[in-house]
Amino acid sequence: MSFTRERVVVRTVRPEVAQGRFPAKAIAGHPVEVRADILCDSHDVLAVVVHWKAEAAQAWQETRLTLDVNDAWRGSFVPPAVGRYHYTVTAWVDHLATWQRDLTKKADAGVATPIDLRIGVPLITDLLPRAATPVRRRLEQLLAALQDEALPLPIRVDAAVSEELADLTWSLDPRANQVRYDRILELVAERERAGFSSWYELFPRSTSSEPDTHGTLRDVITRLDHVAALGFDVLYLPPIHPIGETHRKGRNNTIEAGPDDPGSPWAIGSRHGGHKDIHPELGTIEDLRALRDACRDRGMELALDIAFQCTPDHPYVAEHPEWFRHRPDGSIQYAENPPKRYQDIYPFDFETSDPEGLWTELRSIFEHWLAEGIRIFRVDNPHTKSFPFWRWCLDDLSRRYPDAIFLSEAFTRPKRMYELAMRGFTQSYTYFTWRRHKHELEAYYRELFHTDVVDFFRPNSWPNTPDILTDQLQSGGRPMYVQRLVLAATLTANYGMYGPAFELMWSAARPGSEEYLDNEKYEIKRWDVDQPHSLAEVIALVNRIRHAHPALQQDRTLAFHEVHNDQLLAYSKTAGDDRILVVVNLDPQYVQAGMTWLDMQALGLEEDDHFEVHDLFAGGTYHWHGPANYVQLDPHISPAHIFEVRRHRTEADHEGLA
Amino acid sequence: MSFTRERVVVRTVRPEVAQGRFPAKAIAGHPVEVRADILCDSHDVLAVVVHWKAEAAQAWQETRLTLDVNDAWRGSFVPPAVGRYHYTVTAWVDHLATWQRDLTKKADAGVATPIDLRIGVPLITDLLPRAATPVRRRLEQLLAALQDEALPLPIRVDAAVSEELADLTWSLDPRANQVRYDRILELVAERERAGFSSWYELFPRSTSSEPDTHGTLRDVITRLDHVAALGFDVLYLPPIHPIGETHRKGRNNTIEAGPDDPGSPWAIGSRHGGHKDIHPELGTIEDLRALRDACRDRGMELALDIAFQCTPDHPYVAEHPEWFRHRPDGSIQYAENPPKRYQDIYPFDFETSDPEGLWTELRSIFEHWLAEGIRIFRVDNPHTKSFPFWRWCLDDLSRRYPDAIFLSEAFTRPKRMYELAMRGFTQSYTYFTWRRHKHELEAYYRELFHTDVVDFFRPNSWPNTPDILTDQLQSGGRPMYVQRLVLAATLTANYGMYGPAFELMWSAARPGSEEYLDNEKYEIKRWDVDQPHSLAEVIALVNRIRHAHPALQQDRTLAFHEVHNDQLLAYSKTAGDDRILVVVNLDPQYVQAGMTWLDMQALGLEEDDHFEVHDLFAGGTYHWHGPANYVQLDPHISPAHIFEVRRHRTEADHEGLA
Repeated sequence: MSFTRERVVVRTVRPEVAQGRFPAKAIAGHPVEVRADILCDSHDVLAVVVHWKAEAAQAWQETRLTLDVNDAWRGSFVPPAVGRYHYTVTAWVDHLATWQRDLTKKADAGVATPIDLRIGVPLITDLLPRAATPVRRRLEQLLAALQDEALPLPIRVDAAVSEELADLTWSLDPRANQVRYDRILELVAERERAGFSSWYELFPRSTSSEPDTHGTLRDVITRLDHVAALGFDVLYLPPIHPIGETHRKGRNNTIEAGPDDPGSPWAIGSRHGGHKDIHPELGTIEDLRALRDACRDRGMELALDIAFQCTPDHPYVAEHPEWFRHRPDGSIQYAENPPKRYQDIYPFDFETSDPEGLWTELRSIFEHWLAEGIRIFRVDNPHTKSFPFWRWCLDDLSRRYPDAIFLSEAFTRPKRMYELAMRGFTQSYTYFTWRRHKHELEAYYRELFHTDVVDFFRPNSWPNTPDILTDQLQSGGRPMYVQRLVLAATLTANYGMYGPAFELMWSAARPGSEEYLDNEKYEIKRWDVDQPHSLAEVIALVNRIRHAHPALQQDRTLAFHEVHNDQLLAYSKTAGDDRILVVVNLDPQYVQAGMTWLDMQALGLEEDDHFEVHDLFAGGTYHWHGPANYVQLDPHISPAHIFEVRRHRTEADHEGLA
Repeated sequence: MSFTRERVVVRTVRPEVAQGRFPAKAIAGHPVEVRADILCDSHDVLAVVVHWKAEAAQAWQETRLTLDVNDAWRGSFVPPAVGRYHYTVTAWVDHLATWQRDLTKKADAGVATPIDLRIGVPLITDLLPRAATPVRRRLEQLLAALQDEALPLPIRVDAAVSEELADLTWSLDPRANQVRYDRILELVAERERAGFSSWYELFPRSTSSEPDTHGTLRDVITRLDHVAALGFDVLYLPPIHPIGETHRKGRNNTIEAGPDDPGSPWAIGSRHGGHKDIHPELGTIEDLRALRDACRDRGMELALDIAFQCTPDHPYVAEHPEWFRHRPDGSIQYAENPPKRYQDIYPFDFETSDPEGLWTELRSIFEHWLAEGIRIFRVDNPHTKSFPFWRWCLDDLSRRYPDAIFLSEAFTRPKRMYELAMRGFTQSYTYFTWRRHKHELEAYYRELFHTDVVDFFRPNSWPNTPDILTDQLQSGGRPMYVQRLVLAATLTANYGMYGPAFELMWSAARPGSEEYLDNEKYEIKRWDVDQPHSLAEVIALVNRIRHAHPALQQDRTLAFHEVHNDQLLAYSKTAGDDRILVVVNLDPQYVQAGMTWLDMQALGLEEDDHFEVHDLFAGGTYHWHGPANYVQLDPHISPAHIFEVRRHRTEADHEGLA
């Protein structure tokens, strides 16, 4: 520590992920809100800026922060393009502003004296040599005015405390004894779809139009118009690689597969190849390219599933036994969750003697599909691969392919889920699937969006997956399906569904479990999506609302609103003038009604405003006033309102328009 | 980033102050609880230790942490002596424990096989060369048993999963791929009084037994038996330095002092000297030494007030004009809080051209009094001196005088208050003075003790000071004084009072203000502490309870308990078997009653326990059962219970004794 005239302290800069160990996440073209606590002794006025630049740029840009409350400052900058950025915060004592503030106070109290004016003179004259000629001339005029003893004191004070003077001098301030935050922080700005996406999962092998026929990637193309009409923009396929034969699982996850059982797509590797190959029955690489392009033609993107595990038949097993753990009898250790055994799956051993070989090969699997123009990956069980590997792999890939998106299927404990997000996953599956009650949903999304978690973790909410058919979907019927759809699609900007099963409300479970009976993971199904009870129209409507409303395309503004009924959940999202208020009846059986107590500020309204709420989902328009308004929802008619909130024009607005 | 077999991640180590920028605080001889989040992929069993050592020591010591919930681990170490310590956390995959756990699960499910046993063999044999002979022999026996095919499998499994095996192998574990937290953290272990102290403030000049006579430091000695009888251990004097004459303030802070007005002790500096000198009317350095020793003889310590500011008469003003800010007319800038002016006070300018000179001289003031054996300082308005100065000054002083205690009089915004604590102040004044209602008190002390603040900020609660006579003391009468005394003395381990005024419940305020009328800061008073209405006995009782109960000598275990009456505040503190439960009636006028809903776990009790609460304060013993118990307090009899909680002996206990 050395002697210093620096008096300012910069603390608690946000966003800052894991104390600056990892980059924060943002979307290119959207503002990054920066906050910092700025402390100084005594009572001086401070000046604070955020400095930011693209990682490779030389010059820093800067934006001012403004004082909020309690020593907290706020401001924002907009990363213009996808890529990496650096940012930090600088603060200093603003002596000129301090003088202006004190002079104003004294003048207001009638105790200003000429000497109080003179205190500012050297502060201004010191800046003159730094000013361009027109600014210098104007400053000299103001200086002359505030020193002119012929003028009445109030006129001189007005010149001294003018905003014009503050504005002219701001950029000239030498920023004596400025203090920069002791870290340069990192930011990854990603493309729009990283922050706003709608996923539809289907099994290609179930897409043939012929009965009892293995579907192909070409067959999937015939389903694309349907998926596009539903409004989805990401088509996600379970692993498309050769499926192993040794210890292949049969229907309903039985240990002995029958001769016609197709096996689980997650049992990767056979004599036909491994993670860089395509299951022969699905087609060829040309078929995949055709599917990729056909998606693109419809405004969609194809997402592949990367599951780092091997069947005993995978070529890696013979070529790289050192990547697996061995048992005392020389056999390879299969996956276990004692007492359960998964003899068809060999996990990689991240304590291998050859981490470089293993890591490089695993990364090359992504590289292989990136080279095929695939940019979205759903990553299976990332929490069973080492955390350092993910940082190494995703940091590198996201630099070389900044438009790549990685969805983490980390159904694990919260801190591990978050750690994976910090280490580079773009989005993550969440506990949404099991959050059903009002207090659970409120607490969970407050944790996700109202804490530092929002700076690195992007939730992707799924009401169902091939692995999960929850209790409530098993028993709740159509009202529950619609409710979960609306919740997933409006609580979070990213959401997805195991599509055909959800559309058709396929709800048969293995007794006593949250798993599908006759699970598509182990057999080929045939989905007749044109059935009259299908949810297709409801899904398409929800996706249209999402696409039309920027409020639903981001997460940070989510706010919960009180309703005096524990079965009614109310929340809003806003983006500028776009304001969406959702009310959901969590009870799938009975009509529920209650009075709201709206957080008017969160809606961008005054406490006493009159406003209109227009139900984009169930139709109808209501005229509301202030925080307390009546809501009632019959789940059999519509389990939810998705209101667009419009402020009534006031007389003043009309005058403004006239 | 490089390829690694390390799989463990160490996160969120606590205590960690401002991301490791400042040391955490502890008391020598008391445990420091260390927490960390430890993450690893997959499902292995982990091992975690805290490493710690005295700063100057070479060798690290270690203590195991144990898994709490949700990847959080806990443990503690005890810094044996006052001084600085380093600590950090290390974790690794415990392969032997993983094998034991999995084997246990399989054996429980009846699916263990000989090969499952064999997996552990190399894990153990690898350790044999590291073991001392007796351990090695025992391990070889266990190895033989678990491999002995002649034995029944359950017997072999028992040998394999035995705790003995776990214990024997723990210290031999080579800790392959262990990961150390990426920071070494710092800890300051201080003496007991840093964490548990009772302060009594008096003005020496008001201690003469003669009317209209300026009291002296020798007169203070005559008051010591009284203060000691009250149970205080720190006697704190306002500044004892020469008081300025220029612009001296008169009685009640008037601008013109009369010829007999003594001035404010905080207006430091005259022709008689400055911060290293003693006001002539108070006595000499010998008198101070006598007072210091007389305190010590009574188990008390003398605390001085360090106020870094000068009157126009202070020798520094002439000798070091560069330490002050100058106005355009050449005069020195006095203190201002526009439109208020304090012409008798010149603040130091921490943007001086000579920071080294100023800082070194200010530090030398502490050094001067430290050399006189003073070890406790109350520091006036530290938030008007630069933060970097405090770090530099206090870090250095606390290394050279590790028994020094610095109390920060930082009545300022919370983040500045905390920043001063982080930068080295031992204790701090708090907002207790203005926290009166139940929800305010609960929220405030939760922030202080149930967040990271507890690791660096030690609150010292004052119901009154010479500057503050709150509304509630002005109007609440004796019940309010007793209430505030009990709250201050039992909510926080450190507390203090502006003694004579509190004892005598002197409550006359300047109308419309929270300031004393005829404030002792500007005049000499005569306190007749032997008046019948004095609170002396109550104060002495509270201090005796504090000294008898370790639970009240620390802050971390403070827990609030529900009472179904907003006027009744209930909280407990525990230390081992010592359990104190305080219930305070916050209403100074009326009897209040209600049912408790005790947090039984916080009291170290089972939900259904029968227990005895013995009121150490108002007397009486009650037999309680479970969380719900009736309490009633008449403020005119006693505004508070201070219960000692004693669990009833159960039959099992009796049997144990028999």
